[in-house]
Amino acid sequence: MDFLDGKARAAALAGMPSEVTQTLRYFLSAGGKRVRPLLCLIGWHAGGGTGGDAAPVVRVAASLEMFHAFALVHDDIMDRSDSRRGRPAVHRALAARHSRGRSASDADHIGEGAAILIGDLALAWSDELLYSAGLDPVQLADVLPVVSEMRTEVMYGQYLDLTSGGLPTGDLDRALAISRYKTAKYTIERPLHIGAALAGSSQALREALSAYALPLGEAFQLRDDLLGVFGDPCATGKPRMDDLREGKHTALVALAYQHATTDQRNTLDALLGRRGLTDSDAGSLRRLLVDTGACARVEQLITIRHEQAERALDSAGLSPQVAAALRTAAGGAVVRNS
Amino acid sequence: MDFLDGKARAAALAGMPSEVTQTLRYFLSAGGKRVRPLLCLIGWHAGGGTGGDAAPVVRVAASLEMFHAFALVHDDIMDRSDSRRGRPAVHRALAARHSRGRSASDADHIGEGAAILIGDLALAWSDELLYSAGLDPVQLADVLPVVSEMRTEVMYGQYLDLTSGGLPTGDLDRALAISRYKTAKYTIERPLHIGAALAGSSQALREALSAYALPLGEAFQLRDDLLGVFGDPCATGKPRMDDLREGKHTALVALAYQHATTDQRNTLDALLGRRGLTDSDAGSLRRLLVDTGACARVEQLITIRHEQAERALDSAGLSPQVAAALRTAAGGAVVRNS
Repeated sequence: MDFLDGKARAAALAGMPSEVTQTLRYFLSAGGKRVRPLLCLIGWHAGGGTGGDAAPVVRVAASLEMFHAFALVHDDIMDRSDSRRGRPAVHRALAARHSRGRSASDADHIGEGAAILIGDLALAWSDELLYSAGLDPVQLADVLPVVSEMRTEVMYGQYLDLTSGGLPTGDLDRALAISRYKTAKYTIERPLHIGAALAGSSQALREALSAYALPLGEAFQLRDDLLGVFGDPCATGKPRMDDLREGKHTALVALAYQHATTDQRNTLDALLGRRGLTDSDAGSLRRLLVDTGACARVEQLITIRHEQAERALDSAGLSPQVAAALRTAAGGAVVRNS
Repeated sequence: MDFLDGKARAAALAGMPSEVTQTLRYFLSAGGKRVRPLLCLIGWHAGGGTGGDAAPVVRVAASLEMFHAFALVHDDIMDRSDSRRGRPAVHRALAARHSRGRSASDADHIGEGAAILIGDLALAWSDELLYSAGLDPVQLADVLPVVSEMRTEVMYGQYLDLTSGGLPTGDLDRALAISRYKTAKYTIERPLHIGAALAGSSQALREALSAYALPLGEAFQLRDDLLGVFGDPCATGKPRMDDLREGKHTALVALAYQHATTDQRNTLDALLGRRGLTDSDAGSLRRLLVDTGACARVEQLITIRHEQAERALDSAGLSPQVAAALRTAAGGAVVRNS
């Protein structure tokens, strides 16, 4: 937050609008699980990092959270989400702020554009947090390629997710590829790798961390898919109509297609991705996801992946403290209501 | 382009869509003036950089062009531009590509989302080009803060431009602030500074470059404002209705407001920013911009700034070759038809 204070002061001096840093600060203060910064620190410990020189690592962890703000602000535009973390989504808040003297559709357009720019700034600033973290040249050379991979992967994952939207099918592999890129690598594997790289870890350690991270990350996304349809919006901060209304190509939906009767398939085709989806439509879809067994199958996929991640931990040769922290993280990722 | 080849191969291996790198390659191959890479190289020469070790500098220059691709792709979404560089704008091309099986408005939404992501990737990749340019740690430490400044400035400039859209006034200072941040610093000053930083230049040299760059950059944007309204769309690759239809708050419009009669002011209020602007509306606005003297006043502002930039060159103490290159660049920036 000191970093944002500096940006706010610089903006004021330059006569630039204060709403940019205000909006980002408000967004970052609204909570979120801070999964990535936490895993970055655990990865650093896993690589043998210890107390004395933790300040640069904490700043790298903060840069991951700033990057995540970028990702969520842009995602919410693409997913047409009205809310996030229990508050109006950034593009909605900015549309309201700039509504005076404009038509509703012009205000919406300004809101989206302004949110695109605030996301862009968060991405640029996540970079600045990273390179000004006080890393030595070796650490920087080790960590930058991993950060690049992470960014490319999550953007491709989101691209695949977006362009599959509205046209879901029974293709489970595609749904799992989306969850691998958009979530498993981005949320679990790469933050661990980044922390480990800061500690100068071996390739073997990174592979051991991947063996844990990828199945766990898929389980995390599968849980998210369930929460996105059945979860309590007060707990997730996300309304549970969005995924259905956008016709998201998730594993849950792919499995429903695979096991649907002709009638059920017709209902899926008719209702998924329908812009004016009603509560009753959403109810029909939820029932159908249960009746086809898709819901239970996803629970099964989560369990399998959770167990895989646990087994990977057993053979990873990590210190007991690190293994315990990762075990707790795994539990939290797959059993949660938000 | 070797860099994009590598990204395309990596995407193919990972089963990710090839349209991302294809779209960026197509966009980058469509031309553009390459002003920023060129100025980066001139800045490097100005700082005393010489032949032998130019490869990293060229790669940094390429990273500026990749960053510019990011900026244009996102700008075209915000400005609702249908074309760029004589081809459909990226969000329009992607909407067409993903139209099958979708309503027109859903396809538009996917096109915009996909263009946001392709811009995001271009921004992330501009970073990767920069840090993998083969700079030594001292160069990297010198250049990264300037790159950060440049990014923050252009994003703020665009933010101010966007949020002033549709509500133009007679506030000339605000219009000039937009052009300073969005263009003068981004297009002229910072590329020169980045090149100079790579050569390990002094603070004094950077200030001398700024004294040339800022007036010239404002002149460049003022010329752009005129071209955006009066210019030949075949030469600019941009239709000349966009600025009027978006109600851009430019110096041209601010001066028209300052010198308009009541009737003329009413016409400006009624037509600027009108979504369904007709050719005849645009004709009325163009006539009004001439009749109020706004057009001639902008030409005057351009001349004053051009002369200021020339004078700054006289006293900058640059080598004759560098001064000549900057003089040519200045001429090209203020006298052009695209």
